[in-house]
Amino acid sequence: MNEPDTRTIYMDHAATTPVDPRVVQAMLPFWTIHYGNASSIYSLGRQANQAMEEARRTVAAVLNCDAKEVIFTSCGTESDNLALRGVAFDRRQRAKKNHIITSSIEHHAIGHTVEQLVKQFGFEATFLPVDRYGAVDPGDVERAIRPDTAIISVMYANNEVGAIEPIAEVGAVARRRGIPFHTDAVQAGGQLSLDVQALNVDLLALSAHKFYGPKGVGLLYVRRGTRLLPAQTGGSQERGRRAGTENVPYIVGMAAALELAQAERTAEGARLGRLRDRLVSSLLARIPDAELTGHPAQRLPGHASLLIRGVEAQSVLIALDLAGVAASSGSACASGAPTPSHVLTALGFDPTDALGALRLTLGKENTEADVDFVVAKLPEIVERMRGNG
Amino acid sequence: MNEPDTRTIYMDHAATTPVDPRVVQAMLPFWTIHYGNASSIYSLGRQANQAMEEARRTVAAVLNCDAKEVIFTSCGTESDNLALRGVAFDRRQRAKKNHIITSSIEHHAIGHTVEQLVKQFGFEATFLPVDRYGAVDPGDVERAIRPDTAIISVMYANNEVGAIEPIAEVGAVARRRGIPFHTDAVQAGGQLSLDVQALNVDLLALSAHKFYGPKGVGLLYVRRGTRLLPAQTGGSQERGRRAGTENVPYIVGMAAALELAQAERTAEGARLGRLRDRLVSSLLARIPDAELTGHPAQRLPGHASLLIRGVEAQSVLIALDLAGVAASSGSACASGAPTPSHVLTALGFDPTDALGALRLTLGKENTEADVDFVVAKLPEIVERMRGNG
Repeated sequence: MNEPDTRTIYMDHAATTPVDPRVVQAMLPFWTIHYGNASSIYSLGRQANQAMEEARRTVAAVLNCDAKEVIFTSCGTESDNLALRGVAFDRRQRAKKNHIITSSIEHHAIGHTVEQLVKQFGFEATFLPVDRYGAVDPGDVERAIRPDTAIISVMYANNEVGAIEPIAEVGAVARRRGIPFHTDAVQAGGQLSLDVQALNVDLLALSAHKFYGPKGVGLLYVRRGTRLLPAQTGGSQERGRRAGTENVPYIVGMAAALELAQAERTAEGARLGRLRDRLVSSLLARIPDAELTGHPAQRLPGHASLLIRGVEAQSVLIALDLAGVAASSGSACASGAPTPSHVLTALGFDPTDALGALRLTLGKENTEADVDFVVAKLPEIVERMRGNG
Repeated sequence: MNEPDTRTIYMDHAATTPVDPRVVQAMLPFWTIHYGNASSIYSLGRQANQAMEEARRTVAAVLNCDAKEVIFTSCGTESDNLALRGVAFDRRQRAKKNHIITSSIEHHAIGHTVEQLVKQFGFEATFLPVDRYGAVDPGDVERAIRPDTAIISVMYANNEVGAIEPIAEVGAVARRRGIPFHTDAVQAGGQLSLDVQALNVDLLALSAHKFYGPKGVGLLYVRRGTRLLPAQTGGSQERGRRAGTENVPYIVGMAAALELAQAERTAEGARLGRLRDRLVSSLLARIPDAELTGHPAQRLPGHASLLIRGVEAQSVLIALDLAGVAASSGSACASGAPTPSHVLTALGFDPTDALGALRLTLGKENTEADVDFVVAKLPEIVERMRGNG
């Protein structure tokens, strides 16, 4: 356990972020005062509906799209599932398209969904390779296209190694060939441009809790004309594309969080980039036999991912936690028994080495002092572990 | 618009409820203080996980089940979808079971999902009739069973007419024949017993916002041994049965709301029953050519549903809203163009008459004075509408 009087240095913003207090304030009235069901026709319902539609317009302005192209969901995973299941089933039923193209370093929300579509529903899939830095080659995308390709899905930025993918280029290929293109932008949300026109995407998934909004709400952008078979059916909410009573407080909160992140993105990105570079270069200078994973420059601003040979990340994380530092080895969604990350092995790392993966992801509360604290603590932890090995 | 100094008399608790301020208090620390990802291994993550698992035990105590049998979801609609899709696809793939039995008065979360499974995925379905009061006959269930029946789904209480179904009897039939039995208990949550052993159910769906918890969180009880193909795939949350970062504040809030509702259920149910009987008998005495829909006694305690001939419910609702009363014609999830309710036509009502359906559902804040206000206002509104007709 942490010493009770020590503040935790939280460096796992890729896993989740604290909710911005301004976002909590924006949500508060909607639980006890403006509590109407947004589908109800009386004033209390219409007020809730208006707040939700205002949130939709706020989001649409950030995405440079029409508000009608935004579907609110319960999380990034649901958005990814709706994009893949929705388009794949629709394209199969209407046009016999049965093939899915994706990368080999997707989050499980994409990877496991494609696997289920293959194993249980008879789809076929191509998993594209990536280079040593985690980048997909748009030429590989083009070569993988078949006459029966239903959808292409490539993530915007990788959660484990921070790599930013050439989405606009992949999107240009997809558009030229008339195939819907989805991007899992969960890690990019609040950090990179989300202009869906410049990105050439037809579908884009976001999750509020990655940009200081609450866990339990997300959205899916769906370009007009892109058809979906709904994955969750019932009432006629979200124009028939996502049934379920709308979570108005969280929708309002997500829009507020996205607007704040957008306004602060350039300055905060530059600040995080400087902190990250200081963190990475100082750690690599002090820890022998360690290296940066992912691209040195083409990466998320606050994202530092290291491979430290000769240690088990799980033990390092526990030691860091005892020192008051919250970090991770990779995806929080894949926690449990330590197995080598599918991302690092796809990048070509040895599976044993991959067990030494450490991810430090910086965010709004982090300061230079936090970085210096980790730089002071981590090398001695690694040394101790290796000595015990 | 309402006069600004007039309090709204909210009588649409079947659509949604305000969040209990005690529930808001229980949730508050989890956005900004205990904000860890419940799947992370450091203290901040483990604290969130512990709060979530305590919530699961609280829920399990109310349901009289094991905590491992509770899956947290984003809403009642998701729970119903997971139950139907999960069991139907699993039973088809493992045992070639391709037939679904449900009632003709289910919420669209069930009805539209069964329809999609039939139209898009090749399942077959039997929609059971109901009697004049909305009750399913367990004998009809038994007679509808085929060798290839995959799942039976009958709601616990109907949202539009408040009818309580003979769930334990239907469940006994299903168990004798070895078929998984799901109940949509969304309307019953917080009002009727949720003891899954006494109810003979294998799956049961709840939504927090029907019992003074937040909109955007629900749960699915799944009896040990009942297999599901996950409907939302990704990370390994919820023991691999529902992927997506856990919404810890809402999960904590739902458990708190359910525990409060359970503790207050008997006394509050009796109070609501008295208010409802006063409301119904006073309105029927004052409005000619009107009748109660659903069963006079076998109904949810706060649920009053009337059919008022010769008026369009939509106009009545707008007039009630102007008078400061929030009510509905039926399901909020089906709002839009006025079409006759599938529930009322299944009960045998004339489609034209069904357009005069009015639902007044009472809750914690409602008083005798509220009832008397509606009793004073509604008859004159109806008279005015009929005079204009």
